[in-house]
Amino acid sequence: MGLPRDCSLKLHSKWPSGKKNLITDVPGVRVGHVTIKNGEVNTGVTAVLPHEGNIFKEKVMAGSAVINGFGKSIGLVQIEELGTIETPIIMTNTLSVGTAATALVKYMLRENPDIGVDTGTVNCVVTECNDGRLNDIRGLHVREEDVTKAIGSASEDFPEGAVGGGTGMACFGFKGGIGSASRVISADGRDYTIGSIVMSNFGSFGNLVVGGDRIGARIKEQVEAHKGEEKDKGSIIIIIGTDLPLSERQLNRLSKRAALALGRVGSYSGNGSGDIAISFTTANRIMHYSENSVIDMKMFKDDDLDKVFEACVEAVEEAIVSSLYHAETTTGFRGNSYKSLREYL
Amino acid sequence: MGLPRDCSLKLHSKWPSGKKNLITDVPGVRVGHVTIKNGEVNTGVTAVLPHEGNIFKEKVMAGSAVINGFGKSIGLVQIEELGTIETPIIMTNTLSVGTAATALVKYMLRENPDIGVDTGTVNCVVTECNDGRLNDIRGLHVREEDVTKAIGSASEDFPEGAVGGGTGMACFGFKGGIGSASRVISADGRDYTIGSIVMSNFGSFGNLVVGGDRIGARIKEQVEAHKGEEKDKGSIIIIIGTDLPLSERQLNRLSKRAALALGRVGSYSGNGSGDIAISFTTANRIMHYSENSVIDMKMFKDDDLDKVFEACVEAVEEAIVSSLYHAETTTGFRGNSYKSLREYL
Amino acid sequence: MGLPRDCSLKLHSKWPSGKKNLITDVPGVRVGHVTIKNGEVNTGVTAVLPHEGNIFKEKVMAGSAVINGFGKSIGLVQIEELGTIETPIIMTNTLSVGTAATALVKYMLRENPDIGVDTGTVNCVVTECNDGRLNDIRGLHVREEDVTKAIGSASEDFPEGAVGGGTGMACFGFKGGIGSASRVISADGRDYTIGSIVMSNFGSFGNLVVGGDRIGARIKEQVEAHKGEEKDKGSIIIIIGTDLPLSERQLNRLSKRAALALGRVGSYSGNGSGDIAISFTTANRIMHYSENSVIDMKMFKDDDLDKVFEACVEAVEEAIVSSLYHAETTTGFRGNSYKSLREYL
Amino acid sequence: MGLPRDCSLKLHSKWPSGKKNLITDVPGVRVGHVTIKNGEVNTGVTAVLPHEGNIFKEKVMAGSAVINGFGKSIGLVQIEELGTIETPIIMTNTLSVGTAATALVKYMLRENPDIGVDTGTVNCVVTECNDGRLNDIRGLHVREEDVTKAIGSASEDFPEGAVGGGTGMACFGFKGGIGSASRVISADGRDYTIGSIVMSNFGSFGNLVVGGDRIGARIKEQVEAHKGEEKDKGSIIIIIGTDLPLSERQLNRLSKRAALALGRVGSYSGNGSGDIAISFTTANRIMHYSENSVIDMKMFKDDDLDKVFEACVEAVEEAIVSSLYHAETTTGFRGNSYKSLREYL
Repeated sequence: MGLPRDCSLKLHSKWPSGKKNLITDVPGVRVGHVTIKNGEVNTGVTAVLPHEGNIFKEKVMAGSAVINGFGKSIGLVQIEELGTIETPIIMTNTLSVGTAATALVKYMLRENPDIGVDTGTVNCVVTECNDGRLNDIRGLHVREEDVTKAIGSASEDFPEGAVGGGTGMACFGFKGGIGSASRVISADGRDYTIGSIVMSNFGSFGNLVVGGDRIGARIKEQVEAHKGEEKDKGSIIIIIGTDLPLSERQLNRLSKRAALALGRVGSYSGNGSGDIAISFTTANRIMHYSENSVIDMKMFKDDDLDKVFEACVEAVEEAIVSSLYHAETTTGFRGNSYKSLREYL
Repeated sequence: MGLPRDCSLKLHSKWPSGKKNLITDVPGVRVGHVTIKNGEVNTGVTAVLPHEGNIFKEKVMAGSAVINGFGKSIGLVQIEELGTIETPIIMTNTLSVGTAATALVKYMLRENPDIGVDTGTVNCVVTECNDGRLNDIRGLHVREEDVTKAIGSASEDFPEGAVGGGTGMACFGFKGGIGSASRVISADGRDYTIGSIVMSNFGSFGNLVVGGDRIGARIKEQVEAHKGEEKDKGSIIIIIGTDLPLSERQLNRLSKRAALALGRVGSYSGNGSGDIAISFTTANRIMHYSENSVIDMKMFKDDDLDKVFEACVEAVEEAIVSSLYHAETTTGFRGNSYKSLREYL
Repeated sequence: MGLPRDCSLKLHSKWPSGKKNLITDVPGVRVGHVTIKNGEVNTGVTAVLPHEGNIFKEKVMAGSAVINGFGKSIGLVQIEELGTIETPIIMTNTLSVGTAATALVKYMLRENPDIGVDTGTVNCVVTECNDGRLNDIRGLHVREEDVTKAIGSASEDFPEGAVGGGTGMACFGFKGGIGSASRVISADGRDYTIGSIVMSNFGSFGNLVVGGDRIGARIKEQVEAHKGEEKDKGSIIIIIGTDLPLSERQLNRLSKRAALALGRVGSYSGNGSGDIAISFTTANRIMHYSENSVIDMKMFKDDDLDKVFEACVEAVEEAIVSSLYHAETTTGFRGNSYKSLREYL
Repeated sequence: MGLPRDCSLKLHSKWPSGKKNLITDVPGVRVGHVTIKNGEVNTGVTAVLPHEGNIFKEKVMAGSAVINGFGKSIGLVQIEELGTIETPIIMTNTLSVGTAATALVKYMLRENPDIGVDTGTVNCVVTECNDGRLNDIRGLHVREEDVTKAIGSASEDFPEGAVGGGTGMACFGFKGGIGSASRVISADGRDYTIGSIVMSNFGSFGNLVVGGDRIGARIKEQVEAHKGEEKDKGSIIIIIGTDLPLSERQLNRLSKRAALALGRVGSYSGNGSGDIAISFTTANRIMHYSENSVIDMKMFKDDDLDKVFEACVEAVEEAIVSSLYHAETTTGFRGNSYKSLREYL
């Protein structure tokens, strides 16, 4: 839902948000969570499904940008080469990417008996942040069935904050997690939606900026007891979905705009932050099986992309702030605790 | 000199600036301008010299980042492959890059009689922005001797604003141009400087943010008569120099941080904006002629780069704002006029 | 014309060549040369025109690959960002890229009075190799009018060998220069052409392989007197044109295949070799001015690209060998002389 | 051991091989296999250990190149960003990368109790090819303990051919698998080794070229019954190790040379071929914990890299041919059978 209207955090957006102010405003997109919480265990899985059909058979055009590559995400090499995504996108903790990849492979094999027999293999997309500040990450608590459940539970409505893959994340010294938002632009007489969902786990305490307000610095001054968190470690995964017809190249360009949103909220993209953006469009689909070699697609006139880029930066910015707004104070691994930003509003 | 202390524009920097608050705080770096102004002609050349010796014979280690590649800069391919810069870096207008390249070739041939005879050729670095809003850019008013003069006049002290390559530039709907700033960090018991110089020609009117203050939006509301400038066109060239020992890979990483600074000041990196960052270090030099195949160099522990990255973002941010602060109101091509930001302070 | 059928050099191609066995088998593509020869001066200009209309107004979709970036080509940054070429492609010597860029700017300004006034600037594509072994390259003998003439003389028929930009080039210790070839594949019931034109100036003496025949090693053993040329210096520019509907991403993939062709002929892509490939398709055109934001384009099913890739490797391989076959023995700068490969057949 | 001297396959190398003619000629490098064979199951794991110490605590400098990115390798993003490898490199089948990643995570956690507690996480490097032609790949027959065993069994001596990760691979229509070779060059008065190990699973039947001999075409003509295998599918993983002091940038350059070796043996880098090269040097090591921010490293003069590049191309070429030479005829999934190249010699 992004930021509620009556929220004291203001973002001064130029472009309107969609109905839900979520990435699921893009028709067909769904999101599911599995939250794993138990004492020192604070982790989980979030799945983003680009459309409601068989994604392997009907791939979505995609692009990506590695803003800072201190990250272990899986599947980016093939996205760049082929310009498509053919599985749900999984978000989880860093050390669980192997488990998530295996679970996703098994899910895809079940759904597609032709994989590995009559056709090639499958490129699983699994992204991650290190939730080790609040989660016993060495315990590898994500199980394969958690991934399947996250996919199975995907829906147009989903909660934000300390849920799913975001359960144990921290951001700018506050509790981070999952956030989402959307923007609507119009072109050629119809509306298009650009949605974003992030898993936020980045930023130095004191640096958070919201709509120009240096709220992080102000809170840091108040909280003398709060220590450290000086490093912009952690990471952020940024997924951008749209029904705008963009080419693979244009989706790469869109992904790169996430860096500008990071700048807006006060990040300098720290050394240890895996800042990865992945974009897809539901408007250009590539059939796994098709008779013709030459296929039709649509792209957007590059000259008209400014509003798309600006709306994208706004959607990512709000998704980040929304992840902070919705995340509840959480205490976890070794008694570490991260407070909700809302406690300071 | 960056922003003066008594200036009403405030940036809330974490890292101190160097003595001059210019890129020339990095020992050896010098900057020279040639300003070409005459009615509808508003253009020029700025030269950045990485050190005081023969740059071809003693190359500086370098990296770059293409934040948005709608640009015609020359020399980036070889910087990426070899990780060095071997000429002064020239900043001028878009249609004059050919003239500047030829002038730079001739200058390098004069300084190095071995080029093209006893050794290979030379990789000239020429960067550009489109100053066509204030300059009769079709007139190709930059002459080869202007480039030589800019190099010859390079000094540790240099003016900012509507000078040199920045003479005809516009930024966020105001007069743009050349800006510079520096930051100092310490490591292993000694100080290092990170300096930046920009040629600013980007940003939509209304979007400028300075230290969290949405000054652009406020001014736009005041100025009802002001029209258009809705597109983030133009471009920005960002040169980052340092005496920190960084590797080529690390200089690429540093260059990428410029995108975060663009986000801070309100840009979404528009389609038509050639946003290019080039970084060099004076601490790792590659001799053109050397006896040994194995050479010593130094790098910085990546784990300690956070302060470097943050200081870099701050230096670029201040260089941009400084370019706006120092640029004088200018009227030029077809009577177009861009006001100084200072007129609104 | 590629290699004549009765030539003793055999390439064992799988795919048939087009009618002319030149890049101009791709409908609309034309090539023009200006050859500059006078004692120690051996240089020139070659222009490749992607189609017969106004290229700025009707851009061709394009991609590129930097196989080894020791090169000074101009325009690659924007090709990668926007996926288009909007000017003729110029091939000349390394130190003349500035002159060629200025000449191309002036040509484009003449053809398009709107550039720099009612619309933005123009991205000129100028490529180069270092012909300093046979040419007084420091003399900068290419003049602006040579570039205009090369464009003006472009035609479907053009000579190969020591002509145009290839006049002073050397390759594998032999005289190099311009070579071209084409291949035809069929898809969805119709034929498509993949053409290539190269400016060859790379390769160590002794390393040339033609269709599996290690002819270079054999000749090197015969020629005891021949000295040096041990370094794979020089460079190669590889232009690939096609009427296959490919996306920007696919044109990047196509460009990367040029590296495989270099491997076939015996190169290891030496440190000093600027090995640059640029690809374009005449089948996807982007109008500079168009009413709609959403535009139609076509792409090729990636799964069916194998024949395209193989035909491309073959066309580039033959273009390289053809450049050697057609180049006449040339004596030039400081009495340096490079013999035609034909003298050894 | 590469190709035996009395082998009828000849490669005409310019640079001598090391003692073993294996990647383990680079001091400290070790390789271990686990081979999994059982009727329709033909798969396995190969582990490459860059040195004998704790790789996480003492990382090796590294680079990579994606020649064709139709691949699911894990860990490349962080190699590019940080220029280091900090785990053994695993080679296995495509659908088992998740299992291998999890096993490698657990192995690294056991060896390093600080990971995820006192320090960050770990970047596991897992590479893959699709062995589905000979292996029941959907069965996911690689278990976590196979990965641990492969690491544990690593040694300077290791077999090539249909072993380890190469058990079920096919190459140019023959049985493929693991191959290795090395070359020695000298610089500044001492010797350096460049070694390569490949997992070969690429190439169209009929296209194999060995040292200029078009042996693949010859065999294809003989074998009328042989069907299909027309697509250059599969993939090839190429690991290059050296004790030459190279920088991260130079290791990227080295990795790119693998494409030239692919060209030499007859590949056109098919659409479905994940052609990935990873290079590391044991001569530049990055300590995970170190007191100083500024660290010493060595690099190689780029101007002297030609012999390094050529030796690298030769080592990769021989590793590929060696994988074919040593691989035994194998029958597996659905009765598919791939013959050893040796049956045709």
